[in-house]
Amino acid sequence: MSEEELNARHAEKMKKKKAARDKILATKTIEKGLLIVHTGKGKGKSTAAFGLVFRALGNGLKVGVVQFVKGKWETGERKILEHFPEQVTMTAMGDGFTWETQDRQRDIEAAKAAWERAKAMIMDEEHQMVLLDEMNIVLRYDYLDIADVIEFLKTKPADKHVIVTGRNAKDELIELADLVTEMEMVKHPFRAGVKAQKGIEF
Amino acid sequence: MSEEELNARHAEKMKKKKAARDKILATKTIEKGLLIVHTGKGKGKSTAAFGLVFRALGNGLKVGVVQFVKGKWETGERKILEHFPEQVTMTAMGDGFTWETQDRQRDIEAAKAAWERAKAMIMDEEHQMVLLDEMNIVLRYDYLDIADVIEFLKTKPADKHVIVTGRNAKDELIELADLVTEMEMVKHPFRAGVKAQKGIEF
Repeated sequence: MSEEELNARHAEKMKKKKAARDKILATKTIEKGLLIVHTGKGKGKSTAAFGLVFRALGNGLKVGVVQFVKGKWETGERKILEHFPEQVTMTAMGDGFTWETQDRQRDIEAAKAAWERAKAMIMDEEHQMVLLDEMNIVLRYDYLDIADVIEFLKTKPADKHVIVTGRNAKDELIELADLVTEMEMVKHPFRAGVKAQKGIEF
Repeated sequence: MSEEELNARHAEKMKKKKAARDKILATKTIEKGLLIVHTGKGKGKSTAAFGLVFRALGNGLKVGVVQFVKGKWETGERKILEHFPEQVTMTAMGDGFTWETQDRQRDIEAAKAAWERAKAMIMDEEHQMVLLDEMNIVLRYDYLDIADVIEFLKTKPADKHVIVTGRNAKDELIELADLVTEMEMVKHPFRAGVKAQKGIEF
């Protein structure tokens, strides 16, 4: 086939594709607050969640962030969030988690306190989006009762976006969620001896 | 088992976990620019890439962004990037792609021009990170020659981070990459008739 024929065929195909897309898009009319879950063993769960947070901030929304696992890898994100002091409410749970604190009772209390803060932000009229970063970890350890969490999330305000991250998301949460993405690790540089680097991991 | 016993057992286990982690971390000593690929059919490929870009900006790095598919869903990101005018170089290819332009020849020329810009940013000493957003789409259509792209990426400066996004990443790219994450769609609200919303999709 000549380049001209290829081009003509392409134009025809793309015209049909656009028409099909437009038709599908026209059927998508519902606006609602989404329950979004990022899970899986791969990288990018929290990074994509913070990407959503930044996008929302860029659009002028107010966002609450609750970190259930306070890490050392967050300096980059924090510096960006500091540019939007009026739009962000940020709270971190305790001083680390599990292998850092090595104190189960303190972790449980910290998780419960963080969940109380999260519930308040989900119910208030101020925030349009709430990120529950790494809450899946806390749920996996049963530091919070999954039945309580699900019961609460079922009653969240209809227009509020809630994002939950962390590997091993519970089935009950996946069942309730509107959007679930599993980040699958195909290749990881740690395996080749590469260390955590500024601008990538933190 | 009593709560006290549970707590004591937990402390012991976490102490061992921390020791194991510290030992592993001590073996990770290499610093290098990573070739990162986000692919798969799920959401979060570009969002996680922009999350990395924002983190890098927060850390004071300079970042180049080349958009191979200029979309309408980028207002949020753009507004954030505008907060860091000295650290970001942004360039978008043409006026849309495939089903929007319906003009194969123009798409090919635009892809080639965008790749030239990308190469310049990857080779220069100014940027520490370059995002090639949706380049996998262009590669899939063979608008750029994958062999040329791979040959070039093999010679990139050792400390430069390059991120490539888009579904259907070519095998050659996955083979060369240091870090590959596949975003898998588990659940998508489009299926339930929910439309693209501000703060989520754009």
